[in-house]
Amino acid sequence: MMHRLAILSDLAEQYRAVIEKENLPDLTIESTPGPDTDILLGNPHLMKNILASLPALSWVQSTSAGVELLMDSSLRRDYVLTNARDVFGRLMSEYIFGYLLAHERQIFQRFADQQAKRWNDENTGVLYGKTIGLLGVGSIGAEVAKTAKFFNMTVRGYTQKSEMSADVDHYFHGNDLLKFANGLDYLVSILPNTKETRKIVNADVLNALPTHALFISVGRGSAVDESALLNALTQNKIAGAVLDVFEKEPLPQDHPFWTTPNLLMTFHTSAPSLPEDIAKLFIENYKLFNQGKPLKFQVDFEKGY
Amino acid sequence: MMHRLAILSDLAEQYRAVIEKENLPDLTIESTPGPDTDILLGNPHLMKNILASLPALSWVQSTSAGVELLMDSSLRRDYVLTNARDVFGRLMSEYIFGYLLAHERQIFQRFADQQAKRWNDENTGVLYGKTIGLLGVGSIGAEVAKTAKFFNMTVRGYTQKSEMSADVDHYFHGNDLLKFANGLDYLVSILPNTKETRKIVNADVLNALPTHALFISVGRGSAVDESALLNALTQNKIAGAVLDVFEKEPLPQDHPFWTTPNLLMTFHTSAPSLPEDIAKLFIENYKLFNQGKPLKFQVDFEKGY
Repeated sequence: MMHRLAILSDLAEQYRAVIEKENLPDLTIESTPGPDTDILLGNPHLMKNILASLPALSWVQSTSAGVELLMDSSLRRDYVLTNARDVFGRLMSEYIFGYLLAHERQIFQRFADQQAKRWNDENTGVLYGKTIGLLGVGSIGAEVAKTAKFFNMTVRGYTQKSEMSADVDHYFHGNDLLKFANGLDYLVSILPNTKETRKIVNADVLNALPTHALFISVGRGSAVDESALLNALTQNKIAGAVLDVFEKEPLPQDHPFWTTPNLLMTFHTSAPSLPEDIAKLFIENYKLFNQGKPLKFQVDFEKGY
Repeated sequence: MMHRLAILSDLAEQYRAVIEKENLPDLTIESTPGPDTDILLGNPHLMKNILASLPALSWVQSTSAGVELLMDSSLRRDYVLTNARDVFGRLMSEYIFGYLLAHERQIFQRFADQQAKRWNDENTGVLYGKTIGLLGVGSIGAEVAKTAKFFNMTVRGYTQKSEMSADVDHYFHGNDLLKFANGLDYLVSILPNTKETRKIVNADVLNALPTHALFISVGRGSAVDESALLNALTQNKIAGAVLDVFEKEPLPQDHPFWTTPNLLMTFHTSAPSLPEDIAKLFIENYKLFNQGKPLKFQVDFEKGY
């Protein structure tokens, strides 16, 4: 059987180039989705509204990890949805450890010293020996845990049930969220957007952190109670925050976060989708698909991830 | 036989506390060095001028990796000199990867975006897949190489002869310095101060680098031709430099580096000596010393490291 793939992404040309080079069997790449399209590859934002018009649709490969736009209960669920996972873990680790190191090594403060021509040879902090807490330990969290162990850190993980990563030293579940937060040097949220994770990082969690703690948010902005975080930062209840995701994106111009002290922000860019990596993942999954085998990284519509 | 240790360091009290807790056999810790002192632990800067006055001196443990102050040909060499090695590799790796990530992830530029309330969601660079070149692959270089492999990078090493680290993908020696530099994304100097390394990072090496390359210097400042580096940066022959060490330290107030564009500096703080780590190393070596066994990390007075 001949399969028909449509690609819906700003980077469609790059995906197409990598995939075409592979000469995958039984595959035609269409320039626009049509009645015979059985495979979609793309951005959930661009795919969402076209799902209903594709009678032959059988498999959707998301180019992002987050697929909550496709979880809307008004949308069909009679196809296999796979998302991008492994590829983001390494890149998100780079982001998280870049900002952790910038914090410990006081990279901004040393630049201020330089500008003031001040030879400041006081010791900075180090990652070595610190304790990091991961809210959510899926494939991305597992990669972050691995990186933390590489840097000789202690790793705590808070999950619903799973204890998949062996790089997590201590797992916490359910009602043990505050116990998990207590004494952390760094708290990192890698949670998806689900009913259970909504505003899970609230005033209680932020109060449970030591005052020297740094909070990093890279999953979905909905996991954070933004006004509680604003309070924690302005009242110096924690040392700082690094946010890549927000309740509303792009962040509204009048949002207080733009000017909140000790808050660094980036713009939903912690894990850039490298077309090459995503295309590889698609190629791997296509081979399974074409053989009628189960695909990698299938999303459970009930759980939402 | 009873051994007598004197500690010469700004952190002497911390070293003493850790060592005393260990209850090492046959060891007395003196408050000042005297005629019976056979062991010194400390900073080369503080030990240098006292060496001649210690007739019983048998072993000197340096708290730093760099011991060039003790290489002066006017000084005695009739004792075993050991330096601090393993402990710095991890901390220096933190420094190097902190600044590499700050560079790739554009941490300063994103802060400027934040200050301008600009939602800039362009992709940043990544470490993944990049090529790093290490000038010098001793115990610190080996740790940096290991970290680079962890981040999925390609590693080149330039050494006099040794090829000890298996994490280096390609070794270069002797006349192949420019070949080594050609095409590197990052060049990192971890060289000690010896005759052979003097101004080894010169105009030719800097010209051999791609214009997008970042140079990081954490070994000794003497390995860098500072005026060649100044030219390379002001003429945009390379993208940037991060310097922790300088020809003259503290850097003179009128040195152009304070205000050179695309240059970030720190103040000989890339690998803070953690008293606990250094004390552990001393304790380990003392046990060997007391049993008449060869010590770890002996310095060769001829080679200078």
